[in-house]
Amino acid sequence: MSPLDLTVDHSPFHRLIGLVLLRAKDGEVEMRLPWQEAFGRSDRSDWYHGGILSALVDIAGDYAVASRLGRWVATIDLRVDYLRPALKGDLVARARAIKVGRTVGVADVELMDEKGAVVAIGRCAYSTSA
Amino acid sequence: MSPLDLTVDHSPFHRLIGLVLLRAKDGEVEMRLPWQEAFGRSDRSDWYHGGILSALVDIAGDYAVASRLGRWVATIDLRVDYLRPALKGDLVARARAIKVGRTVGVADVELMDEKGAVVAIGRCAYSTSA
Amino acid sequence: MSPLDLTVDHSPFHRLIGLVLLRAKDGEVEMRLPWQEAFGRSDRSDWYHGGILSALVDIAGDYAVASRLGRWVATIDLRVDYLRPALKGDLVARARAIKVGRTVGVADVELMDEKGAVVAIGRCAYSTSA
Amino acid sequence: MSPLDLTVDHSPFHRLIGLVLLRAKDGEVEMRLPWQEAFGRSDRSDWYHGGILSALVDIAGDYAVASRLGRWVATIDLRVDYLRPALKGDLVARARAIKVGRTVGVADVELMDEKGAVVAIGRCAYSTSA
Repeated sequence: MSPLDLTVDHSPFHRLIGLVLLRAKDGEVEMRLPWQEAFGRSDRSDWYHGGILSALVDIAGDYAVASRLGRWVATIDLRVDYLRPALKGDLVARARAIKVGRTVGVADVELMDEKGAVVAIGRCAYSTSA
Repeated sequence: MSPLDLTVDHSPFHRLIGLVLLRAKDGEVEMRLPWQEAFGRSDRSDWYHGGILSALVDIAGDYAVASRLGRWVATIDLRVDYLRPALKGDLVARARAIKVGRTVGVADVELMDEKGAVVAIGRCAYSTSA
Repeated sequence: MSPLDLTVDHSPFHRLIGLVLLRAKDGEVEMRLPWQEAFGRSDRSDWYHGGILSALVDIAGDYAVASRLGRWVATIDLRVDYLRPALKGDLVARARAIKVGRTVGVADVELMDEKGAVVAIGRCAYSTSA
Repeated sequence: MSPLDLTVDHSPFHRLIGLVLLRAKDGEVEMRLPWQEAFGRSDRSDWYHGGILSALVDIAGDYAVASRLGRWVATIDLRVDYLRPALKGDLVARARAIKVGRTVGVADVELMDEKGAVVAIGRCAYSTSA
């Protein structure tokens, strides 16, 4: 079996948002999302739209489980808690698989702004059955 | 007080994804998301990336609560359940405010594909305090 | 195959809380929880403790999926939103299976007080793989 | 102002389940739930009923936020992920406030069995406005 190709550029959506994979191994993932003006909540603010944050949570959690399982997984459900406004600037996502079972995998995700403050956290369940 | 301007084009992110507001009134919202190739999960599939679905859930729920409250609200947290793969084609989001309290609002969201099948459901909590 | 015995009294926990099954068929469930003083949040209030509400959500959702699947299911995760204080008095739980797939089932639950007001809502994911 | 009385025995529900508070200070909480036969899932198993676990998650998270805020808080919503079956024996809950804001507090909770294995995790949002 060839190992899973843990890169992000095979996905049109990942390319749209310019996602950068920093590392993905053994259930630990780190990604970077460079700021784009198109991510703004409104023309009158410097905040990220929350929609881009929840997308980032989903992706990072998926790679965390996949990096330990050795194949891609489908999201069952996810929860995102927005802890503080995310100001424009690059974001870093850190995800960790906390369970990779026979039918379900669970990952925890933290999104940090450029100063290292956690702006949102996510918890995601994935289907791991083949 | 001028009424809340319930349109979607003030947001760079809404323009990026090409969101169309069909109606938003009294806690009931309907939006349409026309398909773009950039929404694809992978170059080898015709499925939506889940990240775009969770963003749509968040936006539709927000407008549902805002349309009853009369001002914008910030997302506290959200849950998305992915019920079946969303194939390429336009999506419709229907959201309904099920609580608009003094400090918290809650909305339920359904995402439907072109055939009317529900592909994902969301439940979101928003901060309603001024 | 003998049909699943959809009663509630095989469980010590169900007996502890005095749960009454009203109906469970084809993914639709209705249960009643008669009030007990032991369910109180505090000695100085007439409110239910939230913990008993989340338990009721979990049970009702489980029976909804099981009643359609024909076998018991294990909870993957659940979300409960508390919409208003639940005052002492009997509660009714109504649950509905909204997906019963090969690996995952999803149920929606509403908890109503004696006046029919919805006091809490739940959304639960269950593992349906054999 | 007298400090918040962070004990657990003022609640009939806490007394019903025999909850023991080990510590609650500055957003960090530890509780113990001694096993009772009434917590069993079924007469034919040695597993906890999931309903008692979600109740424990809610309580521990609440105390975590309250211990930092200095007053009681009401649960907005919660998520519980069941990671493995909880076998009979005492449980320990560890909760940590990860945000205590002006309107919302968020807590993370872990439930551990007697061997220290994490059987369930919870994430809860509470209303902190006075």
